Amino acid sequence: MGKSEEALARLHALDRESYHLEKAIAVLQWDEETYLPSRGVEERSEQLALLEEIAHRRLTEPETGRLLAGLGSTFDNPRGDEGLADIERDFLRVLRRKYDRAVQLPADFVAAAARAEGLSQPAWAQARRNNDFAAFLPHLKIMIDFARKKAEFWGFGGGARYDGLLDIYEPGMSAAEIDAVFAPLRERLVSLLEKIRRCSPPDTGFLNQQFDTEKQARFNRRLMDYLGFDQDRGRLDASAHPFTTTLGPHDVRITTRYFPDNLLSGVFSVIHESGHAFYETGFAPELRGTCLADGASMAFHESQSRFWENVVGRSRPFWEGFFPVLQETFPGQLDGVSAESFCRAVNEVKPSLIRVDADEVSYALHIILRFELEKRLISGELEAEKLPAVWREYSREYLGVESETDADGVLQDVHWSMGSFGYFPSYALGNLYGLQIRRKIESDLPDFDDAVSRGKFDTLRDWLDSHIYCRGCRLEPAELLRKITGEKLSVIPFLEYIEKKYAELYGI
Amino acid sequence: MGKSEEALARLHALDRESYHLEKAIAVLQWDEETYLPSRGVEERSEQLALLEEIAHRRLTEPETGRLLAGLGSTFDNPRGDEGLADIERDFLRVLRRKYDRAVQLPADFVAAAARAEGLSQPAWAQARRNNDFAAFLPHLKIMIDFARKKAEFWGFGGGARYDGLLDIYEPGMSAAEIDAVFAPLRERLVSLLEKIRRCSPPDTGFLNQQFDTEKQARFNRRLMDYLGFDQDRGRLDASAHPFTTTLGPHDVRITTRYFPDNLLSGVFSVIHESGHAFYETGFAPELRGTCLADGASMAFHESQSRFWENVVGRSRPFWEGFFPVLQETFPGQLDGVSAESFCRAVNEVKPSLIRVDADEVSYALHIILRFELEKRLISGELEAEKLPAVWREYSREYLGVESETDADGVLQDVHWSMGSFGYFPSYALGNLYGLQIRRKIESDLPDFDDAVSRGKFDTLRDWLDSHIYCRGCRLEPAELLRKITGEKLSVIPFLEYIEKKYAELYGI
Repeated sequence: MGKSEEALARLHALDRESYHLEKAIAVLQWDEETYLPSRGVEERSEQLALLEEIAHRRLTEPETGRLLAGLGSTFDNPRGDEGLADIERDFLRVLRRKYDRAVQLPADFVAAAARAEGLSQPAWAQARRNNDFAAFLPHLKIMIDFARKKAEFWGFGGGARYDGLLDIYEPGMSAAEIDAVFAPLRERLVSLLEKIRRCSPPDTGFLNQQFDTEKQARFNRRLMDYLGFDQDRGRLDASAHPFTTTLGPHDVRITTRYFPDNLLSGVFSVIHESGHAFYETGFAPELRGTCLADGASMAFHESQSRFWENVVGRSRPFWEGFFPVLQETFPGQLDGVSAESFCRAVNEVKPSLIRVDADEVSYALHIILRFELEKRLISGELEAEKLPAVWREYSREYLGVESETDADGVLQDVHWSMGSFGYFPSYALGNLYGLQIRRKIESDLPDFDDAVSRGKFDTLRDWLDSHIYCRGCRLEPAELLRKITGEKLSVIPFLEYIEKKYAELYGI
Repeated sequence: MGKSEEALARLHALDRESYHLEKAIAVLQWDEETYLPSRGVEERSEQLALLEEIAHRRLTEPETGRLLAGLGSTFDNPRGDEGLADIERDFLRVLRRKYDRAVQLPADFVAAAARAEGLSQPAWAQARRNNDFAAFLPHLKIMIDFARKKAEFWGFGGGARYDGLLDIYEPGMSAAEIDAVFAPLRERLVSLLEKIRRCSPPDTGFLNQQFDTEKQARFNRRLMDYLGFDQDRGRLDASAHPFTTTLGPHDVRITTRYFPDNLLSGVFSVIHESGHAFYETGFAPELRGTCLADGASMAFHESQSRFWENVVGRSRPFWEGFFPVLQETFPGQLDGVSAESFCRAVNEVKPSLIRVDADEVSYALHIILRFELEKRLISGELEAEKLPAVWREYSREYLGVESETDADGVLQDVHWSMGSFGYFPSYALGNLYGLQIRRKIESDLPDFDDAVSRGKFDTLRDWLDSHIYCRGCRLEPAELLRKITGEKLSVIPFLEYIEKKYAELYGI
């Protein structure tokens, strides 16, 4: 073995240990959200803190830095004499990125930020319960301050400071690029919402019933099977907030939640999280157990969950095929309802205050609002004190509704209390990616709708596997998008899809 | 802080990290046995191997050795000037024992043993399936060899080599002491079995029904509540083999298994494992999160599980109180049955080939058989080749039955394939401890039976907590037994209990 081969092998071994530690942490977190007895919480956070410390130490081993530096020329000169395989170049790029991000933050800064987040999150939860923005404000200011410093440690080239944060979730993306797509998106969604507001709403009365939660759970397991979720490689459980977690290449778990008076919440969470899970189980075998076994970005991940949830799961062909199973699960409760009227009901547009309850049309407007505000918080243009008022103003302008309380307004989301600035755009970018991809799928798979109506998802899954999932994070999102669609980020496919779909549904 | 106080504080910090790592490992193992998707197994063992390596490194930090050595005089001279609190002396003793055991085995020996076990276990499982002792024999020989070497590394004073292994599970116990109690135990149990064989068996026909497993699960959860298992500090799940695991001071989980045609298996596993769980949740608050938060020994642990399962759970007062709930759970299925006849049925004595299915009378004979054989395997008196024949011979002599296959004989237990020699006696010693303790309980709590019949277990739990559980492993088993009962190990209380109970049940 040559010297760089040896170094590479050692880096793979170190990376593999990091991977295992991350997954072990994920097991403890999954258990915390699903089955942990109530009094075990405190001990669990101590266990997690220790494992996270060990994982951080493993990731930031000085040895990794030395080996990466030693392989620098190989890395910088991909066609160099070393003849490094493409996949190894990608591996080194992603590992270096991960390593750099971790070591660029000084240890005392990381510790101080973790302590501040530890105080901020419960303060936010309490402030939301008490509708008391003032109580959260000092924590929020500290969180903004840490985020600004983080951006500085990481650097943001010549761009906006916000770009330094955005890059964690969406490598290579800038606020300016987002501005360019969010502006037309906002304009046309606001105008579509206005049109819809003048139409008569679909009948949703049949959803106002009690749906037994055990039957919901049984239905959702059938739904997973129907979608092709391999239950030998994952599972479905219940938790307070739905999520997907990867505990290993063949162990990707999703959760949902059950409300007797809200059938749709559990069902669409299962489809949404299954989209994430398909991505996570689709990485090529040679990426498994390495830092390349990850989605290309948060938005790419969200593109898949929202694609499955909305484009597949809220389509008429889908319920033409699967509505009979729902009827059968709840005998007597949905007898007079047709697949078509069910599909209309699950696509009801009703702008409301809460992002997580938003319909497909108004959802992106919730995101744009948050993006506009956090961008200005990080640049320093907007003072945190003014957030509640500005939130209300934007909410009225974008959504036509205005919260009476901060609990239903600026305090509704957990993200800022955790210091996660730059995350929100991913949700809406995911919509855009998803519909750009759909256009390509439609041309590659002309009988897409027909397959969906027959519950035949293998061709679609194969297509997504080979075009997206199998690549892991070998490509940055913009490059991946170009590889798949030949295009750069565009708002057009999403707007055309949504305007066409809702014009039909609402008879506009 | 003085220098030894500093050293002590540092040892506590190191011990606490070991504790957390052990519990994190236990979470991954629990998940493996309960909810892990089938294809996740391979990855899980890699995660576990890494965590175990980290935990072993943490436990054997040379720093620990140096600190322990530095505190040596404090430790050896408990009334020394340092004025170390009793609990700290116990802490140092137990930590030193743990540390010594770990460092006494050379690293390459540990690695070689782990590799050999990794091959031996699946070889055993396959040999059992194929009833092919010859295929397992080479692995068994290697396991015996490793066990003999282990005993040597750990030392066994002037006693038998076997004592070096026994000491892991039952600190301070020797094969000679066990011989002294197992001899009369065997003799009187064999004679009791003979008498029972001449009596007419109880009616067990009503157990030959199908019992819905969901109803069984519901009943078992009520049973946990009834026993006083705090479900905010633990949980019940299903797994292939019932077990108890401690994931934290307030997170002790048990499992059971469900067969539609075997109601009793699930029920008595729940009571048995609850006994283990009561022990694990009963450690005094000041022991939590330290190496003192453990049972005094395997046999002491088993004394509790078997006490709850047999002395409480197979008693007439218990079913007088709780049988109506069982009847209510399976409407129409147990209508004509009385609590008394149910109790007779669950105490049916029927010597059989398989240890885990054995009744209370023949159980210890299964153990004595294994003890006799493994003692001679380790001393070298018995060659592994001869095991199947000797097994059959002993089985006929002790139990009056003889297996036709090795799968139902020498291959039935997993222990030897894992290199666990010296473990088996714990099961029977647990019976003896348990009945010695019961005698003390009867004199302290004269209305014991009455309380059991009314489902009032708090006084009993309080007694067990304050006499046994709260002490963790601060005392070695013999010392703890003397502290509780004023006696040393004795076979008399168990024999008197079992002879009286079965004379009544069988009208001898």
